[in-house]
Amino acid sequence: MKKLINDPQSVVTESVEGFGAAHADLVEVHPDPLFITRKDAPVQGKVGLVSGGGSGHEPLHAGFVGRGMLDAAVPGAVFTSPTPDQIIPATLAVDGGAGVLHIVKNYTGDVLNFETAAEMAQAEGVEVRSVLINDDVAVEDSLYTAGRRGVGGTVLVERIAGAAAERGDSLDAVAAIAQRVNDNVRSMGVALSACTVPHAGVPSFELTEQEIEIGIGIHGEPGRHRIAMENADGITDRLLEPILGDLKASNGDRVLLFVNGMGGTPASELYIVYRRARQVLAEQGVSVERSLVGNYITALEMQGASISVLKLDDEMVELWDTPVWTPALRWGV
Amino acid sequence: MKKLINDPQSVVTESVEGFGAAHADLVEVHPDPLFITRKDAPVQGKVGLVSGGGSGHEPLHAGFVGRGMLDAAVPGAVFTSPTPDQIIPATLAVDGGAGVLHIVKNYTGDVLNFETAAEMAQAEGVEVRSVLINDDVAVEDSLYTAGRRGVGGTVLVERIAGAAAERGDSLDAVAAIAQRVNDNVRSMGVALSACTVPHAGVPSFELTEQEIEIGIGIHGEPGRHRIAMENADGITDRLLEPILGDLKASNGDRVLLFVNGMGGTPASELYIVYRRARQVLAEQGVSVERSLVGNYITALEMQGASISVLKLDDEMVELWDTPVWTPALRWGV
Repeated sequence: MKKLINDPQSVVTESVEGFGAAHADLVEVHPDPLFITRKDAPVQGKVGLVSGGGSGHEPLHAGFVGRGMLDAAVPGAVFTSPTPDQIIPATLAVDGGAGVLHIVKNYTGDVLNFETAAEMAQAEGVEVRSVLINDDVAVEDSLYTAGRRGVGGTVLVERIAGAAAERGDSLDAVAAIAQRVNDNVRSMGVALSACTVPHAGVPSFELTEQEIEIGIGIHGEPGRHRIAMENADGITDRLLEPILGDLKASNGDRVLLFVNGMGGTPASELYIVYRRARQVLAEQGVSVERSLVGNYITALEMQGASISVLKLDDEMVELWDTPVWTPALRWGV
Repeated sequence: MKKLINDPQSVVTESVEGFGAAHADLVEVHPDPLFITRKDAPVQGKVGLVSGGGSGHEPLHAGFVGRGMLDAAVPGAVFTSPTPDQIIPATLAVDGGAGVLHIVKNYTGDVLNFETAAEMAQAEGVEVRSVLINDDVAVEDSLYTAGRRGVGGTVLVERIAGAAAERGDSLDAVAAIAQRVNDNVRSMGVALSACTVPHAGVPSFELTEQEIEIGIGIHGEPGRHRIAMENADGITDRLLEPILGDLKASNGDRVLLFVNGMGGTPASELYIVYRRARQVLAEQGVSVERSLVGNYITALEMQGASISVLKLDDEMVELWDTPVWTPALRWGV
């Protein structure tokens, strides 16, 4: 295992320390218990958005803290849920009087710990709602999950719900649009290589030089099946088919197409996947109205990619286009 | 070799096609000969900025085409210089009557082909200046270079000179500030793993599980020496020492600190490097006033990082902060 780290036990704290220093204009790091808030939190009268989960998926979630997206992110150890004693103070810190929405990826540990934290925060007088992200069509249950896993759709929920909160929507309204985005997005990924959790020191699984894993999870947990390596267009087709089948996307639909890198794949390859995905969508009469291509929800240094397709409505487009100002996603003022 | 590609020969064209579709609001792809311009090129009365080089370093250069940065990018084959017959039409396409600046990384092929193109474009009536980027302190001569190589500093030159052009500076003034940025930036990189050029099919060099290459080039060309793997702080110190020695940074200096990923390294590791680099600079009384952390000039899927330190003056800071609106770097309106 070769990694640019010092001690496997200090990867998250040191990384977050560097992150906080690099983006001190946008975020504030609270070291103990560890969570990250936007610099100007709490914003009075605005719904606060909190997300979190195991580390190793950067820039998710801390990279999305800032105006127009998250108010706080709560990083656990690598591939390990954050604890309620982190989530509770993060929730309290971003409550501006309008309540707080928890955006929770559907992994058992995350679900339990966010639930506990929500109850505790409510006991302290903060109104909390939760939305569960479960957009991965690859498998029904998985190593860390009952039901579908939350993957790339999380980024889109955080952005669009973040925009709704920023314009002043109520907690119910922000929760409703977060749920609507989740209901209209489907994702699936592929791994060309494994990744190595620092404190484990060995790859979490093995793929031969000829194998790829279709439907991989963001922790390297098993997907649908292993197949022999194919070309990019063939792999893209294999990911898109279950996505579009499940989404029931049809002629005339407008979508956001998100091609995400798993961490170790060059941007050039992501654009080759994007190109093919667009071709397939065009053939089906589906119009790509917004796009996102890059490393936004990763699995450490894994080589691979995921595709997410979000069926858009007018409000989602409008919210997507509003300004966002975070370390990893920014446009507008 | 497992890559998300179709045919090794079509990697660049397919990738650029996807890139152009994903960012059609910002850029236009000219397929034959291949180059990319900003959507609204040529901008009348504005100096045009053109850069280019071998592909495989994405998002450099096409990802930096847009308002406040480049007017055109010219991609060659992977790790291969673009040809004059691409550079000439790119130069002509972005001439808005105020002349064109070529930003050329110091590799022999790039230098020769940009020189030829500059002469041809001048013969067609376009005033052309060139600035040569040679910020890599690792080695004096290298596999593809006489003199120092151009690496991470290129991104900073493109941004700051792009901002100067955007505010209406003359060709001489834009060339002067590009030169000043180059003169004040130093960089050095490290590889933890090699990368594989698609049409070669095998890694360009080999590193054992215990070795790293200090002073690596962005094409995997040799650096200063191979050493046994060390921790992130130790590696960071080894990169910073020659940078700061050569830059003659001293107490009271203000710098931009740029920690760049080579393509296959997780963001979390880049922030660990950034954290240490900031500590070292603070110990020397050097103030980090601006930061950039991420994959901006890569070597395909190579694991590793580079550090660039730019000694800032007031004008550079002012230009850095102006709006930039490109696929890979954007802020402001």
